[in-house]
Amino acid sequence: MKVAVIMGSISDREIAKKVKNKLDELEIENSVNVISAHRSLDLLMDFCKKVEEEEIGVIIAIAGMSAHLAGVTAALVDIPVIGIPVKSKALEGLDALLSTVQMPKGVPVATVAIDGGENAAILAGKILALNNKKIMNNIKQLREKSRADIIEINKDLEI
Amino acid sequence: MKVAVIMGSISDREIAKKVKNKLDELEIENSVNVISAHRSLDLLMDFCKKVEEEEIGVIIAIAGMSAHLAGVTAALVDIPVIGIPVKSKALEGLDALLSTVQMPKGVPVATVAIDGGENAAILAGKILALNNKKIMNNIKQLREKSRADIIEINKDLEI
Amino acid sequence: MKVAVIMGSISDREIAKKVKNKLDELEIENSVNVISAHRSLDLLMDFCKKVEEEEIGVIIAIAGMSAHLAGVTAALVDIPVIGIPVKSKALEGLDALLSTVQMPKGVPVATVAIDGGENAAILAGKILALNNKKIMNNIKQLREKSRADIIEINKDLEI
Amino acid sequence: MKVAVIMGSISDREIAKKVKNKLDELEIENSVNVISAHRSLDLLMDFCKKVEEEEIGVIIAIAGMSAHLAGVTAALVDIPVIGIPVKSKALEGLDALLSTVQMPKGVPVATVAIDGGENAAILAGKILALNNKKIMNNIKQLREKSRADIIEINKDLEI
Amino acid sequence: MKVAVIMGSISDREIAKKVKNKLDELEIENSVNVISAHRSLDLLMDFCKKVEEEEIGVIIAIAGMSAHLAGVTAALVDIPVIGIPVKSKALEGLDALLSTVQMPKGVPVATVAIDGGENAAILAGKILALNNKKIMNNIKQLREKSRADIIEINKDLEI
Amino acid sequence: MKVAVIMGSISDREIAKKVKNKLDELEIENSVNVISAHRSLDLLMDFCKKVEEEEIGVIIAIAGMSAHLAGVTAALVDIPVIGIPVKSKALEGLDALLSTVQMPKGVPVATVAIDGGENAAILAGKILALNNKKIMNNIKQLREKSRADIIEINKDLEI
Amino acid sequence: MKVAVIMGSISDREIAKKVKNKLDELEIENSVNVISAHRSLDLLMDFCKKVEEEEIGVIIAIAGMSAHLAGVTAALVDIPVIGIPVKSKALEGLDALLSTVQMPKGVPVATVAIDGGENAAILAGKILALNNKKIMNNIKQLREKSRADIIEINKDLEI
Amino acid sequence: MKVAVIMGSISDREIAKKVKNKLDELEIENSVNVISAHRSLDLLMDFCKKVEEEEIGVIIAIAGMSAHLAGVTAALVDIPVIGIPVKSKALEGLDALLSTVQMPKGVPVATVAIDGGENAAILAGKILALNNKKIMNNIKQLREKSRADIIEINKDLEI
Repeated sequence: MKVAVIMGSISDREIAKKVKNKLDELEIENSVNVISAHRSLDLLMDFCKKVEEEEIGVIIAIAGMSAHLAGVTAALVDIPVIGIPVKSKALEGLDALLSTVQMPKGVPVATVAIDGGENAAILAGKILALNNKKIMNNIKQLREKSRADIIEINKDLEI
Repeated sequence: MKVAVIMGSISDREIAKKVKNKLDELEIENSVNVISAHRSLDLLMDFCKKVEEEEIGVIIAIAGMSAHLAGVTAALVDIPVIGIPVKSKALEGLDALLSTVQMPKGVPVATVAIDGGENAAILAGKILALNNKKIMNNIKQLREKSRADIIEINKDLEI
Repeated sequence: MKVAVIMGSISDREIAKKVKNKLDELEIENSVNVISAHRSLDLLMDFCKKVEEEEIGVIIAIAGMSAHLAGVTAALVDIPVIGIPVKSKALEGLDALLSTVQMPKGVPVATVAIDGGENAAILAGKILALNNKKIMNNIKQLREKSRADIIEINKDLEI
Repeated sequence: MKVAVIMGSISDREIAKKVKNKLDELEIENSVNVISAHRSLDLLMDFCKKVEEEEIGVIIAIAGMSAHLAGVTAALVDIPVIGIPVKSKALEGLDALLSTVQMPKGVPVATVAIDGGENAAILAGKILALNNKKIMNNIKQLREKSRADIIEINKDLEI
Repeated sequence: MKVAVIMGSISDREIAKKVKNKLDELEIENSVNVISAHRSLDLLMDFCKKVEEEEIGVIIAIAGMSAHLAGVTAALVDIPVIGIPVKSKALEGLDALLSTVQMPKGVPVATVAIDGGENAAILAGKILALNNKKIMNNIKQLREKSRADIIEINKDLEI
Repeated sequence: MKVAVIMGSISDREIAKKVKNKLDELEIENSVNVISAHRSLDLLMDFCKKVEEEEIGVIIAIAGMSAHLAGVTAALVDIPVIGIPVKSKALEGLDALLSTVQMPKGVPVATVAIDGGENAAILAGKILALNNKKIMNNIKQLREKSRADIIEINKDLEI
Repeated sequence: MKVAVIMGSISDREIAKKVKNKLDELEIENSVNVISAHRSLDLLMDFCKKVEEEEIGVIIAIAGMSAHLAGVTAALVDIPVIGIPVKSKALEGLDALLSTVQMPKGVPVATVAIDGGENAAILAGKILALNNKKIMNNIKQLREKSRADIIEINKDLEI
Repeated sequence: MKVAVIMGSISDREIAKKVKNKLDELEIENSVNVISAHRSLDLLMDFCKKVEEEEIGVIIAIAGMSAHLAGVTAALVDIPVIGIPVKSKALEGLDALLSTVQMPKGVPVATVAIDGGENAAILAGKILALNNKKIMNNIKQLREKSRADIIEINKDLEI
């Protein structure tokens, strides 16, 4: 199973790149597309219909402002959808955060931190790892490496 | 032309009632339905396709939490969509307000105050009044009455 | 019918330019003026009295901080008023957003996103399009173009 | 010189009562009226024109939601205007606070706390006391009494 | 694989009950415990070590105020952790929301809405359904039922 | 009577300069000092005791973060105190705004906008103008000039 | 050494009671008084001067709205001051929290959660425990008891 | 007794440096380490177990976003823990502030201002000064110097 990354606007590309890089590092097959819930809802619906056939296990949706992309996608598929709220020009990302996380009863979006590209990828990895030993191994290594980095940093720490 | 009122959940009924009452008072033909962007997106799309045929001039969308209803509807029609953010159990309605108003470039939602049922109806009235003298007259009377009420209140005012 | 754009201060010019450009693109006749609810209320009242005579169908009011311009204008005319809250030096635009959108019962302002110049123009277009086929065509084309852009972007997408 | 208290809606009456009671206690002549910046702007303008003639020294304006009353009044008179933001049904009074205090350059509103009726009256008292010994005496006594109360409370304090 | 529900305090019981009821409805095996990141970190660590052995596929962590439970748990396991921020006495749940969702790079928490018990259960269901047809069926039925409910509601709708 | 400007820290100097320039323009005698409620409370008390003797009519207090300067000063004098909340490095000035304006019953601070140097000076001018014709004239001229500026700007307006 | 608890207003009594009960439980000698930074600054200064002589080791200051009590006290003594922000009628306690915690450089206040009476007492206990074995023992027992309670709760847990 | 400074990430180094410099100035022995509650919880637990043995009297924990470091540390030790919330890329530090200060009953964190490095050090100093005359002297001198600086600044003040 692979991960599909969709972003609401090409201006979210930098976040998408962080997601993709981390997915690649975790050896998770992935695709990246620009699909807007507002500007191309029909394309989003087509995309959602093919989820099963294309063996997509997790969708990561990136959007700013009144970020509806993750929520609408989550309403259209039975697989988990991860939402990344993006900080735009005003309100410090609070708008996207609340639009993504405060989903009404019945349609959850697994929301990560504002601009949290890496974490969305890791969360997708943890989900797929439940049934994929290679990914599980990579997740474990990531955790160990992150712990090892801390030890390393302290060795040379000069304040 | 008439006004279609849609709400994301039956729990928004009280706000919908305020909208309907004010539309009736302004003598604007209207319909009220529960249509969720999340739980029944296909119904919403069907509804949006019939907007022209059913001579709907304005849609008023009522939703709380990460309120996507107004935004998604606005993306599907060429007529103006008015959004009413609803105060739910947490965050004092800030979530619904930001989800409704902070729409990305290209897809505006005409947002009114949190729980602002009457104002949504009046705004719809002002829009339709541009080409309807009866509604224009009713809008004018509403304004005059509201001014007259102030004068009346001051006559008896005891603090 | 045309659209009148008013801004509370010359410092809002950049937003006004975005509004004007989009109105021009939609082939909607428009005017742009600086009129402050605070520094020139009499001018605002004069302006509002001539709305009918000058065949203004929609007013777009741009203001920051405790943005009163849209609200006071909406109280003086029977046509729809669109408010654009502007982000100023503090509070990330939250002050202008709440001052514009949280209007009391009876006087709606159709509020768009913070600094949402283009969307205000498009909303005005959707309102006028109800009785103007040329504008309706332009609105439809805008929507189609925006969808087509998404498809185009995905063709060359490299992440 | 006296103090004129105006409120945007009869629903603000409870706050107005607190203002009036404290003004009476300070022996400051006062009047109380409902005048809306939105529903009766012409009445507000008439009222503001008579400020000098009626020997009004300070205006206290009470309003909730996007509270424009204090700001518009301040734009129309050369005397100090005190604004009391009122907590309404949503947003805990933040909307009224920001609408009242974040006035643009040139038109200050002396803003007090949300629902701060007593404090608005005392602030008006401090202003008028600059040229009125009786009021100054009452202000001084208020301060002394408030200090004495603290001492008294501690005598019987049981926790 | 089953779902383990943990809550930071017995005062979160009502939310836990909603989670459990929905998990039962989805026929997902589950356990519910009170485990605090602050008051019993050693118990939390023991619990996390047994995740694999006990065949836990998803952990749902419920906590209010500075809600650290989900984050600390997510740091200790390689399976996905869903966080439910709880609204407490102050700040309308904003504290718990930000404490849960704004996780630093490397340790994602799949955050759902404030007090979003049902949605956490459904999200867990969507994750487990990737490899469990029975759960997938139940998820699909939930979605269909929720759509059918909307149609039903509209039949009898009286406003 | 003159105006005393005090700031909590030399880092507030830029705001103080704006206050002073506007006071000078209004021909109001003034002094500017750095006095901290926290670092030099005894100096603040000495300063407050001399208010009458030095014929100070209004104090303008400038402070950021948990801005206590205006509030503590207001508690020590019977003349009006104007507070200017300053935007610091975090929270966009919200901390200083709430610390300044949300004064408890009995001790009002006349709060102006975040970083609102000019407005604090004009408010002081409006207060002193109640008993000073020269200042009143200057206030009137300021208002007229501000209105004239608007007319002038529109003449050359090019968008 | 003992702990002095001061509150800005008798309305904070309920929080003060929680502080006192927990201090008593920890066997820490304590006193409770109402002392306002605004209404009785001279009493606060007298109180602060006697801190050494009365062998006060920690001061706990309780205040709401623009809570200046803790900050002003911290500026007057060389011992640690703990601040408890109190939730008042508006803004959910955010005003008191920011007024208490956002202290400028040089004058720290050890801030605990909104209405966090017990935690203020425990923090005071942890400070005094550094040189008091009895209190240290009580702190340790509190921690153990809190952990034991969790185990106990799980035994009977029925959801 | 000494002070241990821990930070959640090397990116918090600048704040740690401010803490260290002020601790050095106060002649308080100190150590600085990177220890994450998320990436190295076992190291944090080891560190906490040695607190007594290493004669650490106060821990200062620095962390941003959903800042759990101070809270988890406070749950593991009986000595006072001071938390410094760090402003990150979004939300202006509000996330870290609420995550640090809003601790549940039983586990207090002595929270200082966002990015408040110096104040954390001074607070640690005030705590240790209770039983250390040299530090007490340094704290007193700091306070006197800060007052003297104000007097000095006013001598040369030019606005």
